[in-house]
Amino acid sequence: MQMPEPNTSILASKNRIVARLQEVLPKAAVISEESETRAYECDALTAYRCPPLVAVLPSTTQEVSAVLRICHEEGVPVVPRGSGTSLAGGALPTADCVILGVARMNAVLETDYDNRFIRVQSGRTNLSVTGAVEENGFFYAPDPSSQLACAIAGNIAMNSGGAHCLKYGVTTNNLLGATVVLMDGTVVDMGGAYLDAGGLDLLGVICGSEGQLGVVTEATLRILPKPEGARPVLMGFASNEVAGECVSDIIKAGVLPVAIEFMDRPCIEACEAFAHAGYPMCEALLIVEVEGSPAEIDEQLALILEIARRHDPVELRESQSEDESARIWLGRKSAFGAMGQINDYMCLDGTIPVTSLPLVLRRIGELSKQYGLGVANVFHAGDGNMHPLILFDANKPGDLELCEAMGADILRLCVEVGGCLTGEHGVGIEKRDLMVDQFDPVDMEAQMAVKDVFDPAWLLNPAKVFPLASSEARRATRMAAE
Amino acid sequence: MQMPEPNTSILASKNRIVARLQEVLPKAAVISEESETRAYECDALTAYRCPPLVAVLPSTTQEVSAVLRICHEEGVPVVPRGSGTSLAGGALPTADCVILGVARMNAVLETDYDNRFIRVQSGRTNLSVTGAVEENGFFYAPDPSSQLACAIAGNIAMNSGGAHCLKYGVTTNNLLGATVVLMDGTVVDMGGAYLDAGGLDLLGVICGSEGQLGVVTEATLRILPKPEGARPVLMGFASNEVAGECVSDIIKAGVLPVAIEFMDRPCIEACEAFAHAGYPMCEALLIVEVEGSPAEIDEQLALILEIARRHDPVELRESQSEDESARIWLGRKSAFGAMGQINDYMCLDGTIPVTSLPLVLRRIGELSKQYGLGVANVFHAGDGNMHPLILFDANKPGDLELCEAMGADILRLCVEVGGCLTGEHGVGIEKRDLMVDQFDPVDMEAQMAVKDVFDPAWLLNPAKVFPLASSEARRATRMAAE
Repeated sequence: MQMPEPNTSILASKNRIVARLQEVLPKAAVISEESETRAYECDALTAYRCPPLVAVLPSTTQEVSAVLRICHEEGVPVVPRGSGTSLAGGALPTADCVILGVARMNAVLETDYDNRFIRVQSGRTNLSVTGAVEENGFFYAPDPSSQLACAIAGNIAMNSGGAHCLKYGVTTNNLLGATVVLMDGTVVDMGGAYLDAGGLDLLGVICGSEGQLGVVTEATLRILPKPEGARPVLMGFASNEVAGECVSDIIKAGVLPVAIEFMDRPCIEACEAFAHAGYPMCEALLIVEVEGSPAEIDEQLALILEIARRHDPVELRESQSEDESARIWLGRKSAFGAMGQINDYMCLDGTIPVTSLPLVLRRIGELSKQYGLGVANVFHAGDGNMHPLILFDANKPGDLELCEAMGADILRLCVEVGGCLTGEHGVGIEKRDLMVDQFDPVDMEAQMAVKDVFDPAWLLNPAKVFPLASSEARRATRMAAE
Repeated sequence: MQMPEPNTSILASKNRIVARLQEVLPKAAVISEESETRAYECDALTAYRCPPLVAVLPSTTQEVSAVLRICHEEGVPVVPRGSGTSLAGGALPTADCVILGVARMNAVLETDYDNRFIRVQSGRTNLSVTGAVEENGFFYAPDPSSQLACAIAGNIAMNSGGAHCLKYGVTTNNLLGATVVLMDGTVVDMGGAYLDAGGLDLLGVICGSEGQLGVVTEATLRILPKPEGARPVLMGFASNEVAGECVSDIIKAGVLPVAIEFMDRPCIEACEAFAHAGYPMCEALLIVEVEGSPAEIDEQLALILEIARRHDPVELRESQSEDESARIWLGRKSAFGAMGQINDYMCLDGTIPVTSLPLVLRRIGELSKQYGLGVANVFHAGDGNMHPLILFDANKPGDLELCEAMGADILRLCVEVGGCLTGEHGVGIEKRDLMVDQFDPVDMEAQMAVKDVFDPAWLLNPAKVFPLASSEARRATRMAAE
């Protein structure tokens, strides 16, 4: 993947830039030694690495504003970073950039159970948001697999989802308000703690904008009362296609489980070896979870099981205890880790109409044969968010490139059937060249024009989202205009 | 309310503009006779009237594009209009504008039950969207009181809600995609038929932008399977405050009825006289509706009734039949019409945190005494969307002004407790001067900068949303820059 040429005049001004940053931040919050900046050279898309010029770790909105004002004046690109768990290279530095890490900004600022919200600094990890409210019987719904580590800042940047988003929606449906610092240091408040915020829905535009419009420093999040109970059921099927049809039928019927997770055989084997969840060995496995009162759970499961039986399942097993439920979910949530112990893999992230699941799974199987690379499928099937893992050998020359080409074909297939390049991981650098397969020039121009408004000099998170040539050209034009 | 001075050079060019519009539209679709343009002189905020220069009624996206291109070239302001049911003056013309009415664009373009969406032209009325799918067991969730008449175009412009939005969300939560024509005639597709559309969330920004960013010509809407059943319960209370506390406690408990509607005594009396719904005569009435299977309904209602009993209700009555349920809702949905038979009124539309209901209702009572004007309260209490109706006498000099001043005080109160100027009616001309009470200059600038992107010459729906002086100044600057 090509990265932009670093601006040599910025590299030459490193000492001045560092000195200016040290004026507005505590000494320990400015990291400029090469041995230390290396810690920020990549995110979870580890195939690409580049140490930044400097990394800063501010503690407050005011410090973030001061940093951005300096970078704006100096014309220095800024790459915002949550916990660095991006699978799409969303937090990959450029050599001439300042990494703005929000990891130290992890305070809970306000909790309001009556109106059901929590306000946190954006560096707080996803799981610790729920941690802050669970004693009072509440939880924060979006649950990415990386929830132990990933930050709310990154969740907002990528509009992250998770297994339980079928019922509760993704980040944008659970984000009520945000404090955002624009590239010139201006602090803007968007949304609020209650429904129906006034004005244009700028909060929606910020959510999912991959850190290219502003840096979110504080977030007001909806919290929900914990349901009375939940129960997963395991369903084994004789083929991917049949499992896909079962998902499609459940959705059509209008039942709303909290989660419908899909795993194919390679994935089932890896997860079972790792988590000993008692998964049946079959071609395709669904985990369907419903929640509510015992009566509601029984009623919903009865309907779901009836649909499943029409598809000749090789196994249908309701969880019998909380312990069994936890093991079932541990298996699913450790899928990426479990696969990683066996193979190098690239994790894709496309969305498709639920009714296209059987077709898309068959085509992925064909592409797997065509490229000679294995694929393990594990994904949020209920909302059509796929995560095919393409298996490759990082030590075999050419294998990564082959894997990337196959990934591009799969994502183009998602767009072709009416879906989209990314469900929750973002475009980052990984998928920027595929944007032209999804958007025509008019649609791309509308998106770039909105970036012009928030970041006229195109300094925020450069070389991401848009094809490199497009964003470089835009940046050159805008820098000249500034 | 002050309106902008009409541009006299546009008025002088009327013949040329009409001739150009007739080149791209059928003859009957261009309305320029003064006797006919008068039909478009106001919307449902009838206190303000101004006939437009011309009205056009295109039938396709291509015709809308051709009209906008001409108006852009001629520098003519354009006021988009759905069905003209805005209570905030959102479709009020200026004397030098072209009214772009989408009423003829009412076709169903596509229905897909498996993936649960319908694609319609934007002039289709809200209720007839449900009408197109109900035989197959589906419905479109947002249900404004004006749903028999109001168009999807207006619903999108104002991000409209309705009584049943507590559970299903407002328009923005049910809008999947839109075809939008920008002021220069460019056609942009936003979102799509499936979840997780790629790119920036421009669809969210368009929804609720009051026709100021583009003209929505086609919309893809989520449809939902009709629930098995629904049952409302009527709850009478001894005071507004107690009823407000009951609402707050239901929400806190985590039950999710589809609707919690609130009516106070003046409203109960008017509605009962009109619809004979069998409402009990008391100080405050709640209609709480739950839906699902019979078991789910029983279970939810048991919990809700238990909460209600803690507040010493003067009446608790479950509907015993479909017929009774229909009458209960007819009473509520005809509230505005029923009040209108008795009194002139102005209908406000603010949102507040649900926990502030008792406080805000008390303060509204105090303001009513202070201004000497009666108030009837009827609103979506579950999501904190208030609709106080201020009663006045349109034939009494000064009464309208008094009423507007009192309305402004109530809306400022909503903002003060953490809420917002408008829940679903929009800012329009009615609330534009109050925007400064909600947004500071930095926040306003961010909103205006986004309008710059979509409508650089500020021609779309002028003199609305922003204080008149701000939008006039912005428009002058931008026209000069074009």
